[in-house]
Amino acid sequence: MRSTARDLKRYYNPETGGAIRMDTNTNVLGSNPAAVRFLSSQKMNVNDYPNTYSDGLRDALAELYGLERENFVAGSGSDELLDIAFKTFTEWHDGVTVPVPSYTLYEYFANVNGGRTYAVDLTEDFQLDADAMLGPKAKMIIMPSPNNPTGNLFREKDIVEILERSDGMVIVDEAYGEYSGTSMIPKVNEFENLIVMRTFSKAYAMAGLRIGYSVSNTKISDMMNCVKIPYSLNMLSEGAAIAAVGDQDFIRKSVDLVNRNRGPLAGGLKELGFEPFPSDSNFILARSPVDHAVLTEGLKEKGILIRDFGSKRRTENCVRTTIGSEELNAILLEKAEEVISGDR
Amino acid sequence: MRSTARDLKRYYNPETGGAIRMDTNTNVLGSNPAAVRFLSSQKMNVNDYPNTYSDGLRDALAELYGLERENFVAGSGSDELLDIAFKTFTEWHDGVTVPVPSYTLYEYFANVNGGRTYAVDLTEDFQLDADAMLGPKAKMIIMPSPNNPTGNLFREKDIVEILERSDGMVIVDEAYGEYSGTSMIPKVNEFENLIVMRTFSKAYAMAGLRIGYSVSNTKISDMMNCVKIPYSLNMLSEGAAIAAVGDQDFIRKSVDLVNRNRGPLAGGLKELGFEPFPSDSNFILARSPVDHAVLTEGLKEKGILIRDFGSKRRTENCVRTTIGSEELNAILLEKAEEVISGDR
Repeated sequence: MRSTARDLKRYYNPETGGAIRMDTNTNVLGSNPAAVRFLSSQKMNVNDYPNTYSDGLRDALAELYGLERENFVAGSGSDELLDIAFKTFTEWHDGVTVPVPSYTLYEYFANVNGGRTYAVDLTEDFQLDADAMLGPKAKMIIMPSPNNPTGNLFREKDIVEILERSDGMVIVDEAYGEYSGTSMIPKVNEFENLIVMRTFSKAYAMAGLRIGYSVSNTKISDMMNCVKIPYSLNMLSEGAAIAAVGDQDFIRKSVDLVNRNRGPLAGGLKELGFEPFPSDSNFILARSPVDHAVLTEGLKEKGILIRDFGSKRRTENCVRTTIGSEELNAILLEKAEEVISGDR
Repeated sequence: MRSTARDLKRYYNPETGGAIRMDTNTNVLGSNPAAVRFLSSQKMNVNDYPNTYSDGLRDALAELYGLERENFVAGSGSDELLDIAFKTFTEWHDGVTVPVPSYTLYEYFANVNGGRTYAVDLTEDFQLDADAMLGPKAKMIIMPSPNNPTGNLFREKDIVEILERSDGMVIVDEAYGEYSGTSMIPKVNEFENLIVMRTFSKAYAMAGLRIGYSVSNTKISDMMNCVKIPYSLNMLSEGAAIAAVGDQDFIRKSVDLVNRNRGPLAGGLKELGFEPFPSDSNFILARSPVDHAVLTEGLKEKGILIRDFGSKRRTENCVRTTIGSEELNAILLEKAEEVISGDR
């Protein structure tokens, strides 16, 4: 087995039963309605190959952002885009800098592609330390903003400083970008080394269809398209994504729902003794008033899944929950209270 | 850009207009009916993530072949499985042996994964030369059987000899395996180093949905599942594939159609002066009686796409056409005759 891949384990894959899933940060409004309408009205010729580079979706995205088709690379989830970036811009054993805490799959992508990660701590308030991030002089720097699992946006001035001072590629993973209302996408033509990644799995409510894209200047996008597996995005997912891009009302409604419920959920958690961290996203990281494993297991027994980050450095005793609807959040808080009082 | 990826160009991506496509070797019966029924009856919750390792599809395949779920890895096209195999079993700059002529994408996968290919000539009659294939002592040997673009099966005794004498992994790419009626899949538990790959893009008539799988002993499959991108197969494609596995009548009907029309098409080509090569697949490679480019361009102008291999070594002046229905083949022969006579 490839030397850098030997320690890989299978990915988080819980037995869920009928539990309420507040562990995956998908959209609590449910499936994207434009995508569902598209899929249920389709008589597609699935016997034909998809468009090789998903030109239809890239055109729809170009119109949405006021950019060109050639600024985009489309793929099977933003995970495929991360894989492509490693294959395009790193050599064997190259290091990639990632902040800690952030998304755990970055290290997996480094390992399967023969590389390694430089883990650089965020500051006390979970912001970027630009000097520290630039220290390892890596071929690539990857950061999610809003960050996962902490939930906060990084300061744009820090991202720009890293872009300006780094000799390598800088990937800003905006998986939750719709919720923060800010983006580095308008700056892709300003920087030689900026790649922004986005997904249809969160605000777009289409995780089951595996759709992601990257945005960058056309020179970078062209290199990545040459490396990308031809036809990697299937035709139904591409068609559904085009329909969903055309329904920005659903995205606004989804973001509004989260904005309305973020404060009350954080307040409710505080009342129960949690210490929630600031969120610009559709989830909240919070330090638990009782043992993280007791809380997570207790909620699971009551039919609610949240994600446990309590055993990891920097997020000691912390859990992460999706921001639900008013009703879901009320259930979460009620069940959490039961677990907490039962434990005391 | 990664040193081994710098020469990559974008993939074959013709402007097709409304042309009849005899260039992609998909099923001429059209979209898989069970898959279409499944898709049109579905009210799927596309907001949820797919099953991480496509357990439902792997169970259906295990039943079809009388094997275990853990013998299978499912992915977004057999192309993803090839990519996973490189990431699992090769190190940087490792060589991979491929026969010539065969599928051109093998070299692409080697390049994007930091490796290189040893190209080993097939014998005069397009069969494997086991000694030559084993010569480079590669970490992996990849061969399609039936071979593409030549169309013939390799002799099983040669494949077995390579399996027994090679220290590395041996991938038998059975993309057209349904048409040949033979398979190495029943032998996966006999060999430590055998990986068989299959696709839903050809006989299954679902190229638009990007579904492929590998079959091997459970130890190999487990390593590959650890390396594979989680959730890489979307839920609609997985569901459609499960439905299609349950409708083996369609596969039999599709194979019968090809078996009925192979001889007449080869005969018709011969009458026009082509030299067709023996086929165990749903396509025929044939040496053209006129210049390959003139023929291919001439047919394109008349609304028929075939694939031109005439500029490549070992397939000089050859073209490859899908075996169509009686009607499609009649059109192809008629238009080819017009091009040939116009050229003389």
